[in-house]
Amino acid sequence: MSKSGILFIISGPSGAGKGTIRGKVMEKEIGLTFSVSATTRAPRPGEIDGLHYHFKTKEEFTKMIENNEFIEYVAKFQNYYGTPKAQVESLLKEGKDVLLEIETIGARNVRKMFPDAVMIFVTPSSFEELERRLLYRGTESEKVRNLRLKIAKKEYKSMKRYDYIAINDDLDQCVNLVCSIIRAERAKRFRNLDIVEHFNQI
Amino acid sequence: MSKSGILFIISGPSGAGKGTIRGKVMEKEIGLTFSVSATTRAPRPGEIDGLHYHFKTKEEFTKMIENNEFIEYVAKFQNYYGTPKAQVESLLKEGKDVLLEIETIGARNVRKMFPDAVMIFVTPSSFEELERRLLYRGTESEKVRNLRLKIAKKEYKSMKRYDYIAINDDLDQCVNLVCSIIRAERAKRFRNLDIVEHFNQI
Repeated sequence: MSKSGILFIISGPSGAGKGTIRGKVMEKEIGLTFSVSATTRAPRPGEIDGLHYHFKTKEEFTKMIENNEFIEYVAKFQNYYGTPKAQVESLLKEGKDVLLEIETIGARNVRKMFPDAVMIFVTPSSFEELERRLLYRGTESEKVRNLRLKIAKKEYKSMKRYDYIAINDDLDQCVNLVCSIIRAERAKRFRNLDIVEHFNQI
Repeated sequence: MSKSGILFIISGPSGAGKGTIRGKVMEKEIGLTFSVSATTRAPRPGEIDGLHYHFKTKEEFTKMIENNEFIEYVAKFQNYYGTPKAQVESLLKEGKDVLLEIETIGARNVRKMFPDAVMIFVTPSSFEELERRLLYRGTESEKVRNLRLKIAKKEYKSMKRYDYIAINDDLDQCVNLVCSIIRAERAKRFRNLDIVEHFNQI
């Protein structure tokens, strides 16, 4: 019985620290595989296609969007960045666990594409704390701050689609919690049918 | 919204190391509460009723068995030891998490009494390894050894009732895994409706 990998999704509102957490969890090397993103930006010296990025033209990328080939994509500095569904599917099929960080808006989509994904919502323990983080980020205008808060409120609406809530009041604790969730999920009985099978045969 | 505690059950065949694991997990003090057992044995000097044990007469204990007041009980050296259901229920109601180690035979019962219990099956990764541990335990007769193996095979039949399988080939790793399961379960969304509620009101 070949075992497929687990897709872990980290999401949450801006200011929750999901990017930092994903990075730190990946660093801990707990057997997670990096999914290579696709991008329309030009390769930098030394960057290898398929290793650092899948380099695409704008036309190719747009076509992939139309064909629903991305789990999620964003536009940044006039370039697109996206997570190709096929890439993640093939890693999972090889039995590799993948950890992705996505925006909350993509959460509903992920559930449809990967019903077995383990979805983790990262947030500070109170909205007041998120406000503090968003409002004291720098020298933004009142208007930009209010927009940030309005978006954050919307992002919390998707909370109900998640399996876990990882409180990020202390970064190290939150990183450890996400690692715990990954280890626990791997130990679920329904993910270890090879072991169950072994003991059924005794 | 007051939050009720989580009941964690560690079980598995003899020789899997479940008792040692429970002890080490409790030592790590990750917010677990000790459930006081009932016993028919006489109090030793310094032992306080209700703190170290609930001391019962044989008649009281037998009556409790008849009334289905135990999650599980065992007879050891002509005395009974048991885990009173009422005690565990009141700890959970107070919001305290409880970790119990029980024999596999009690697993079905626990599910009926506590449908939300988190059940962890501890086992070495192969039956051959369990055989090694059971067979080289000491200077037992061939007959006793065979009986042990026969019982162990039966114990594996209950594996399908568990939520998690914790492989115990390395004790420290297994203890850490059980701690991870406890932390992950606490972070499940459905156990954190107070947080969901908080963010619903923003």
